[in-house]
Amino acid sequence: MTLQVGIVGGGQLARMMIAPAVELGIDVRVLAEQPGMSAGLAATAVGDYRDLETVLAFARDVDVITFDHEHVPQDVLQGLVAAGVAVHPGPEALFFAQDKLRMRARLDELGMPQPAWAAVSDAAGLDAFLEAHGGRAVVKTPRGGYDGKGVRVVSAAADAADWLGALAEDGELLVEELVDFTRELAQQVARRPSGDSVIYPVVETVQRDGVCAEAIAPAPHAAGRLADIAADIGEAIAVGLGVTGMLAVELFETTDGRLLVNELAMRPHNSGHWTQDGSITSQFEQHLRAVLDLPLGDTALRAPWSVMVNILGGPATDALADRLPAALDAHPAAKVHTYGKDPRPGRKVGHVNVAGADLDEVCYEARAAAAFFAD
Amino acid sequence: MTLQVGIVGGGQLARMMIAPAVELGIDVRVLAEQPGMSAGLAATAVGDYRDLETVLAFARDVDVITFDHEHVPQDVLQGLVAAGVAVHPGPEALFFAQDKLRMRARLDELGMPQPAWAAVSDAAGLDAFLEAHGGRAVVKTPRGGYDGKGVRVVSAAADAADWLGALAEDGELLVEELVDFTRELAQQVARRPSGDSVIYPVVETVQRDGVCAEAIAPAPHAAGRLADIAADIGEAIAVGLGVTGMLAVELFETTDGRLLVNELAMRPHNSGHWTQDGSITSQFEQHLRAVLDLPLGDTALRAPWSVMVNILGGPATDALADRLPAALDAHPAAKVHTYGKDPRPGRKVGHVNVAGADLDEVCYEARAAAAFFAD
Repeated sequence: MTLQVGIVGGGQLARMMIAPAVELGIDVRVLAEQPGMSAGLAATAVGDYRDLETVLAFARDVDVITFDHEHVPQDVLQGLVAAGVAVHPGPEALFFAQDKLRMRARLDELGMPQPAWAAVSDAAGLDAFLEAHGGRAVVKTPRGGYDGKGVRVVSAAADAADWLGALAEDGELLVEELVDFTRELAQQVARRPSGDSVIYPVVETVQRDGVCAEAIAPAPHAAGRLADIAADIGEAIAVGLGVTGMLAVELFETTDGRLLVNELAMRPHNSGHWTQDGSITSQFEQHLRAVLDLPLGDTALRAPWSVMVNILGGPATDALADRLPAALDAHPAAKVHTYGKDPRPGRKVGHVNVAGADLDEVCYEARAAAAFFAD
Repeated sequence: MTLQVGIVGGGQLARMMIAPAVELGIDVRVLAEQPGMSAGLAATAVGDYRDLETVLAFARDVDVITFDHEHVPQDVLQGLVAAGVAVHPGPEALFFAQDKLRMRARLDELGMPQPAWAAVSDAAGLDAFLEAHGGRAVVKTPRGGYDGKGVRVVSAAADAADWLGALAEDGELLVEELVDFTRELAQQVARRPSGDSVIYPVVETVQRDGVCAEAIAPAPHAAGRLADIAADIGEAIAVGLGVTGMLAVELFETTDGRLLVNELAMRPHNSGHWTQDGSITSQFEQHLRAVLDLPLGDTALRAPWSVMVNILGGPATDALADRLPAALDAHPAAKVHTYGKDPRPGRKVGHVNVAGADLDEVCYEARAAAAFFAD
């Protein structure tokens, strides 16, 4: 029997699962939000992932349902499970990815290092937190945020008046201390339903405007203590939250040498795109193997250094393809990955991976190749 | 504009172009011989590649037509060109791939080293060749052979009586001296219509029963003189025959240290499957870049050694997928590629690539992983 994976969501993460699926002989099917999306080649259905009947019909005959994103509502997830469909990551795990307040509470229970945080429901609560934490803090809407959306730095409750005012009866916002960090890291873990897991080397990520701009793998100057701590955190969260498939843990490295958990993603993640060309097993292949409960692949590096640079926005009028010849000509070792998305300001439309022995050279090549696609 | 490539033929070579096409943002469409073939995911048409109207209809709107095999008839190829379709490799190049007598004659004109050969049309001619070349020779049907089919070792004209008897009025067979070789090598070249070309390192191939069983890249003990000669031969043939896209030149290394051209393939080739996991640019990505006249990719090795082992035949009753968990469990660094084909004795249904620093270890891993899929 051919293995069948159903992916809910037709974005670039689903798209990038197609290549390893074809090679491994896994039949991937995608439930796309609309026609012509990134993963359109594998789209067997177009429909609303918030509608249980739509998702149940899509899930018929697949071995497992997995996701391009974490936004499928709990009632749909639980409806799938009730109908006997294997769902990975499952509703219990995704519950924590979907609600940052629940996530913070659970990480506290697990003893994970985190920024100081609180749930606040009014201006008084927020002001009290600000007073206790140096007068500035990060306010987040617990649900629906991504790529910097739903995140705001405030220095007074008035700065979040609109969000506070829009809260439902028992609604709450998450407020976190503004961490004094030197850089951001990301730890990826893959975990099978039957329990085995593998870790990737911790990477350094560079964010711009709340969006991942670059990743360097492995994170420079992290071998040993930092890498071990990051791996332990990743493993503990994967197990503690019951994550199956790929987990990414975004971390702050603080100025006093601690690692604090920032965000989680229970799917392939931008910080792991380098694995396509820099690891024996890409995160997209690994996710498929993990959700199918197949043995996991080797996460060893293919080269001492890998750098991923996102292509953000892209040219306003020309399509990406028009820039491709010049980029490939100048950088024959750069691996250009595009998402089949119409460019618009700030949108992730592709990325470039370069792997090699010299970090400076690898960084230069990846940035220079990606620059051909800049606005 | 999205780049569009139309591939005639739905076999595993077309299938393996899907992954790099998706990543580079190239829209591939496949004209498959029948439904459910290896490249079925990208099949936009099912029809007979020997029918010009079928192929012309398929070719509408694509930037270039290329091929999964070399069997498209000349009248169809020339009809495409006459209709203004870009075809790579073109009819003139494929002419030599389709007729081994023409190929031998052209390689002589180019001064390429070859086995002694002749065109024979009757028993007397074949016996004369045998007498002049030690009493044994290889007889080949000039057209339609592959994977050892249409090739026979003879020691008397009577051994080829059936083929001789079936010859048309002016028909001829190709007869070649039986080369005393120590091993077989393969040289791959990619060439753009605008003229640029890149070479891959020469590899050693191991044939069993006329079918490629393994490839080792780069060929051991070939660095320097042998590799340079192989590269020169590959380049000269690509230019001399006007090949566009990937070219594979199968070579004999003789016991007296010469390289002689055995066969040619104007497409991605079994001897280059290792590039998927062992080269910066896989032969499948390279073929797409070349036929689109895009700048070619870096052919540098990702690891000191790569070994590819074919999965031949496969289990008679179980599907390949049933063997996958045990193989992946035992060999987490092995890259298993499957073709979505029903197994039958001797049929190529997949391959395993392993790359690494130690050749013995890499060979062991690749063979051991492939053995999980043996009959």
